[in-house]
Amino acid sequence: MTASSASSASTRQPEIRKDAVFNRLVIFSPARSRRPSDFKSHSPTKSPNPNPKHLSCPFCLGREHDCAPEIFRIPRDTDDWKIRVIENLYPAVRRDLEPSSCCEGVVTGFGFHDVVIETPVHGIHLPDLSQAEVGEVVLAYKERVCQLARNGLLEYVQVFKNYGASAGASMTHSHSQIIGLPLVPPTVSSRLDSLKEVFDKSGKCGLCEASSEDILINESNYFLAIVPFAASFPFEVWIVPREHASYFHDLNEQKAMDFGGLLKLILTKLSKQLNDPPYNFMIHSSPFHLPPSHLPFAHWFMQIVPQLNVVGGFEIGSGCYINPVFPEDAAKVLREVNCTIN
Amino acid sequence: MTASSASSASTRQPEIRKDAVFNRLVIFSPARSRRPSDFKSHSPTKSPNPNPKHLSCPFCLGREHDCAPEIFRIPRDTDDWKIRVIENLYPAVRRDLEPSSCCEGVVTGFGFHDVVIETPVHGIHLPDLSQAEVGEVVLAYKERVCQLARNGLLEYVQVFKNYGASAGASMTHSHSQIIGLPLVPPTVSSRLDSLKEVFDKSGKCGLCEASSEDILINESNYFLAIVPFAASFPFEVWIVPREHASYFHDLNEQKAMDFGGLLKLILTKLSKQLNDPPYNFMIHSSPFHLPPSHLPFAHWFMQIVPQLNVVGGFEIGSGCYINPVFPEDAAKVLREVNCTIN
Repeated sequence: MTASSASSASTRQPEIRKDAVFNRLVIFSPARSRRPSDFKSHSPTKSPNPNPKHLSCPFCLGREHDCAPEIFRIPRDTDDWKIRVIENLYPAVRRDLEPSSCCEGVVTGFGFHDVVIETPVHGIHLPDLSQAEVGEVVLAYKERVCQLARNGLLEYVQVFKNYGASAGASMTHSHSQIIGLPLVPPTVSSRLDSLKEVFDKSGKCGLCEASSEDILINESNYFLAIVPFAASFPFEVWIVPREHASYFHDLNEQKAMDFGGLLKLILTKLSKQLNDPPYNFMIHSSPFHLPPSHLPFAHWFMQIVPQLNVVGGFEIGSGCYINPVFPEDAAKVLREVNCTIN
Repeated sequence: MTASSASSASTRQPEIRKDAVFNRLVIFSPARSRRPSDFKSHSPTKSPNPNPKHLSCPFCLGREHDCAPEIFRIPRDTDDWKIRVIENLYPAVRRDLEPSSCCEGVVTGFGFHDVVIETPVHGIHLPDLSQAEVGEVVLAYKERVCQLARNGLLEYVQVFKNYGASAGASMTHSHSQIIGLPLVPPTVSSRLDSLKEVFDKSGKCGLCEASSEDILINESNYFLAIVPFAASFPFEVWIVPREHASYFHDLNEQKAMDFGGLLKLILTKLSKQLNDPPYNFMIHSSPFHLPPSHLPFAHWFMQIVPQLNVVGGFEIGSGCYINPVFPEDAAKVLREVNCTIN
């Protein structure tokens, strides 16, 4: 994948690119928009005065009894926890149902729906944590995904975070979610089919080859942060392991810490540049029971999507997205955000 | 496709269904929600005092010179128009660009992006028009799609409407949009592949067989309005031709008028039941140059999606949707909305 060189938005003509991972067309159409550096969220997400404890928040330290059962906490066996992984009180799928085989397009809603409380303190958000603390959250994801992998009845696990009400968060206390499903979602199979197509044509993994200088934002020892060549959303970022790896939960501690640092940096840059926008992030890992022949093109990554514009009827109808910011321009803006993290 | 019989939401256990048209899993999870009849939009879309003319609205009668060029109006050759089809002033794709063949996943942004102004009067919305007037809007869509089909350089046309700012509408004056693309979007190809799979297995068109009594809302002479068996969104409605038809733009005048009446009825019911929610509708027609072998399973339909909840990281990541309202319950609620239209 080659990206054309960056130039000012005003001189750009619209371009239609194909996303070879999600098998989707994206129309880059700068005429509809402001300059790339002018993009801001209209309503910053953070409340201006975070309270260390919020009276009605069950995710706060000391309110553990108001939550659904705990799965584990970090550190273990202490009241003074830093991270808690708990069951979701209002699960989309339920661990107490009998799994069933598919009959006429229907199965029971068996599955696991967990919550990762990323901090005991209300008003602290994920990028406010230290690099090591973000790394520990990543390790908590990994540990829970490993547990779900051992369950044996699940096929796919989605780790995700919704930040801000308009990105789907119903609780303001910093948290992420993990849903384990007894089926491989067709969209996930399609992603692997797309990557297989790239591999069959080029002999290379599409994600190993996804980066080029003009779309690179930052890199760490083990990861690259890029704006993908055919980003569906303005300022969408992917964090991709440099070395080919099919499963997120194979991450070791050293790489998790490295990932945590880069994730903190990117979330801080997005918040600074885009006025603390609502966002979603998703870990695109591989289904648990992938045939070995699929491993060479199955490459996990994290997708981060700031919510800056509305998806309308064209996107729902055609599956094509309209993105007013060329990826090279978004990458340049984010590369240049002045930002030191600790 | 068989739908289980309707029962009260409180006794329902979550269920995962597969949408055989969009090849997508949908989790029906009533525990997360209120009773189906309690669903309402929090912010009704209509302004309380519609003005027949709005000073700054270029879509109003008399402001034609502030718009991009007109393509046609109805009736022809009169200042007193009822419908205007015009170019979009801020097109996502541009008719003045050279079409190009695909090179390394990129083509120029050639295409057509038009606007259908559905009424000269500001503050009148599509379902406020008479059945015959809505039918005329449908005929205007048809006429413009026929023109684009004759262009020869286009492969797919998406007709859609965004109603309300949170559904993507940037203008409040009632309008819809038409985008013609030089490529078939992969999502559209996937929809046809899914319908082919149904056809290969059953020998039947998935859309001809999509209806059953418990998901039917209303029917007209030529169309059925249903909540699909695996609706991705609460109160999503499909209007499906009873007789197999691959192309929307093959619709004759009689059927267009019949369709207009049913569309008005459904939009009126959704507005009444759900407190005038923002919504999108999309006409899912077939690519222009479909091989004849695909015609038996390519069946056009309109999808109407009221915007009642937020799509979050789980949906973006896995492509699975969580719908808190079972289709049979939504269909029952909409069937029973007391509503007379003229």
